[in-house]
Amino acid sequence: MEMVKNSAGRSVVTDINGSAAVPFQGVGKYRPAGRKYAPPVASCADYPSDGDKRAGSIREALEKCGLRDGMTISTHHHFRNGDLVADMVFAAAKEMGVRDLVWFPSASFPCHEHFTDYMKEGIIHHIEGSMNGPLGKFASEGGMKGMGVLRSHGGRYQAVQDGEVHIDIAVIGAPSSDPFGNANGLEGPSACGLLGFALADSQYADRVIVVTDNMVDFPCVPWQIQGNYVDVTVEVDKIGVPERIISGTTEITRSPDRLLLAELTARFCDAAGLIRDGFSFQTGAGGTSLAVSDYFGKIMRERGVKARFARGGSNKYLVSMLEEGLVDYILDGQTFDLDGVKSMARNPGHVWTSPFTSYNYHGKGNFAGMVDIVILGATEVDVSFNANVVTHSDGYLLHGIGGWQNCLFSKTVILPLPLFRDRIPVIIDSVTTLCGPGELIDVIVTERGIAINPLRKDLLEAVKGSGLPIKRIEELKMEAEQICGRPAAAELDEKVIAAIKWVDGTVLDVVRKVRTGNKS
Amino acid sequence: MEMVKNSAGRSVVTDINGSAAVPFQGVGKYRPAGRKYAPPVASCADYPSDGDKRAGSIREALEKCGLRDGMTISTHHHFRNGDLVADMVFAAAKEMGVRDLVWFPSASFPCHEHFTDYMKEGIIHHIEGSMNGPLGKFASEGGMKGMGVLRSHGGRYQAVQDGEVHIDIAVIGAPSSDPFGNANGLEGPSACGLLGFALADSQYADRVIVVTDNMVDFPCVPWQIQGNYVDVTVEVDKIGVPERIISGTTEITRSPDRLLLAELTARFCDAAGLIRDGFSFQTGAGGTSLAVSDYFGKIMRERGVKARFARGGSNKYLVSMLEEGLVDYILDGQTFDLDGVKSMARNPGHVWTSPFTSYNYHGKGNFAGMVDIVILGATEVDVSFNANVVTHSDGYLLHGIGGWQNCLFSKTVILPLPLFRDRIPVIIDSVTTLCGPGELIDVIVTERGIAINPLRKDLLEAVKGSGLPIKRIEELKMEAEQICGRPAAAELDEKVIAAIKWVDGTVLDVVRKVRTGNKS
Repeated sequence: MEMVKNSAGRSVVTDINGSAAVPFQGVGKYRPAGRKYAPPVASCADYPSDGDKRAGSIREALEKCGLRDGMTISTHHHFRNGDLVADMVFAAAKEMGVRDLVWFPSASFPCHEHFTDYMKEGIIHHIEGSMNGPLGKFASEGGMKGMGVLRSHGGRYQAVQDGEVHIDIAVIGAPSSDPFGNANGLEGPSACGLLGFALADSQYADRVIVVTDNMVDFPCVPWQIQGNYVDVTVEVDKIGVPERIISGTTEITRSPDRLLLAELTARFCDAAGLIRDGFSFQTGAGGTSLAVSDYFGKIMRERGVKARFARGGSNKYLVSMLEEGLVDYILDGQTFDLDGVKSMARNPGHVWTSPFTSYNYHGKGNFAGMVDIVILGATEVDVSFNANVVTHSDGYLLHGIGGWQNCLFSKTVILPLPLFRDRIPVIIDSVTTLCGPGELIDVIVTERGIAINPLRKDLLEAVKGSGLPIKRIEELKMEAEQICGRPAAAELDEKVIAAIKWVDGTVLDVVRKVRTGNKS
Repeated sequence: MEMVKNSAGRSVVTDINGSAAVPFQGVGKYRPAGRKYAPPVASCADYPSDGDKRAGSIREALEKCGLRDGMTISTHHHFRNGDLVADMVFAAAKEMGVRDLVWFPSASFPCHEHFTDYMKEGIIHHIEGSMNGPLGKFASEGGMKGMGVLRSHGGRYQAVQDGEVHIDIAVIGAPSSDPFGNANGLEGPSACGLLGFALADSQYADRVIVVTDNMVDFPCVPWQIQGNYVDVTVEVDKIGVPERIISGTTEITRSPDRLLLAELTARFCDAAGLIRDGFSFQTGAGGTSLAVSDYFGKIMRERGVKARFARGGSNKYLVSMLEEGLVDYILDGQTFDLDGVKSMARNPGHVWTSPFTSYNYHGKGNFAGMVDIVILGATEVDVSFNANVVTHSDGYLLHGIGGWQNCLFSKTVILPLPLFRDRIPVIIDSVTTLCGPGELIDVIVTERGIAINPLRKDLLEAVKGSGLPIKRIEELKMEAEQICGRPAAAELDEKVIAAIKWVDGTVLDVVRKVRTGNKS
């Protein structure tokens, strides 16, 4: 396999599953020359004039859409670990005797663990999308026939829009739909809030199937997915496991260590003057992130400051800030709890967004750059502020990129991280897998000090004399090594099992097979 | 100029302004073989990272977008006869010395009368879009250099989507916008309700400019136009004349003749069993149409029947039906009065639609076919139920097609028409211009009787014994001729001044130059 060194110094593939790939050329350097993917022109003459596109079963729908060997089938992950739709699709494909499919989910979860069987049986050739947990482990150990491709949410939209990925059939699980295919995630037993991760699929796939367990009379309002893009609708008993789609409760961390990280993060933002009237932020939905929001709220109340908008993933804490009037709008990409779903369904200030509006780098701008403060995680950071979110230090691919890369374009990017996890340092010499170039990462907050990227002289200046424990990143690394020792490098094979795309479709890094021979 | 006879028996052009045109092949017969138009892929690297795309003036915006001779410039008509934006664009073009532009409005109005000067001066080569009133007269008398092309709202979306019309620069007047270009028609001094007529322009034009007189902080919510499609935003003093954008009041006709037409129409629908629980209708916003809605309301209250949805153009009567609970939803394409605008801004049951959702024939279905009853107008109908909406019997092109052609796909199409206007019969042997094939037109209601298309045996059967004055269409024609005499044919030149497109992009008919020599 031909490898070249890209501008980040990483050795990457030039071919992914038979298609040429462009190596990463630097942030903002690669300029696309082509045109958007052009789906075939349809005609109303080929669709029922009364708008009723219902098929009797998933299999019938797949047959109508001409499912055959080698096709690319997409699904979305708004049902997270409660998804039942993807399995219905591949079970039907198996029944039909179809083989070598490419599964193009917006993300896969532990609930899809048994898809290893579909891969072993040759029904799925490979997965092109985030592989959280078991499927990532399977790929890491060389189990997948093709090469995985990991993209950010925005990168997935970009790849579909640009025709890098051609979806033959998109299957969109919808908590509410009408027979025409207008669909939303707001109502019904499997309500998940919104369907933005399936937007590109609906717009650009040759064939689109909407599957629902809550068929309503036309019109299904609002139409987050537009029926005018939909070929076939199918009613089934159950598309998701509600308690795995959204957690009934999201809670702020009670861990003193993580609370300290959150507090330091909020104090940093305050000291740097970032929490000011009309500002905006995105914190995510983990326990630490929720705590950061909570601290933000306290500071805002103290200062009499309002935020113009907060970006979701939404949850009850963010919803209460909206309702309190601390933020004018929540611009939401996914709802993480029931309060988020309900708020989105009834509050006009709680706005559903999509990877197109928020993250697509091959648009005429996107929302990410307009966010003042973004709080993100990482599995590893190196002394050049490069960060990794997909592999652990042992080389295992266990996480997707999500919106992480896209958020790096926000004005101030802060990673609150423990200095070590399970006695493995988080700040190291060089990340196992490069997911985000250090030039875009501004601040690392740890329990033992805060490191500011030297490129951000303005931030270094702003927090002078604040009393915050500002340190160089090398110092933090040394402190971790003094406690845990220097970490061992991952034992990796030459074989590339997955490519990491940058937001512009270029190859930022690759993930290699883990050497399991000696361990098993 | 080469002409061929199309399947409707009309002699049509095969070339329009240098591009090949396909003759009409029959309803539902032409199948598009190509792919959608593929706009160039953009990159966020070329747009301001803070999302502020403001230019200082329309001219600066046009310069940024590379305006040059021969380009196609689009505008929308949500400001109707109060539009100030199109003039700003061509005034700037004139100042820049740019020539031979194609103006591609979704419609033009009497307020654009002075655009004849832009045409005489060579700044505008020709207009491709509806020409209501004076510009139609100018074209009819041979004043325009190129050939006009008239399309329905859905046909305009289809033409842009399919790449039949390539928009170089779209200029979108927006009652509210943020600096990023997210825009809506709901708020601001020039509020017009929605911006659906500019949707295709935003999605497919190479360059998109949003012009507003109400710039709000990001995010402008809801975003009927998505900023991610927008290149440049411009703030100006005034984009429209409010009292000409929306009438402060829309009123039901008081004319006894027109009230009779409305009553007969409603009684017909009732007798035919069309007003039943869960039905749907679209009546339009003229005085007669409003009266039809009003009669529908009375019947619904009497019968205890609710409509699932009504299609707008909305107005205070439709809004009150929504608020009363007589209809579950208004699916609205344009708001005709202030009550419509306000209702759309605050009532989640008052839903904004677009030519894509409602009318695009080259989609995977559209909403038109799902409407049970549609009430439309016409300037002429012939004995084969063919109808004309664009020219008068003297041959002058004075009206656009609007959504009229698209609505013909609804389940029952009813045209309430006076038997004659200014002593000119409305039902004639052969329409001056064919806009809608008779096979799609079901019922003609006149003050002297109702004609049902013989194809609709079900309707003929349903109203038997109803006491309604059902007649053959030939009878109605004869009655009119007995009163007014046989109408003289229009005096027309050979020269074709405009083509009438069908919803699938084929040429249904042409409009010829009016012979003015003898008259002037």
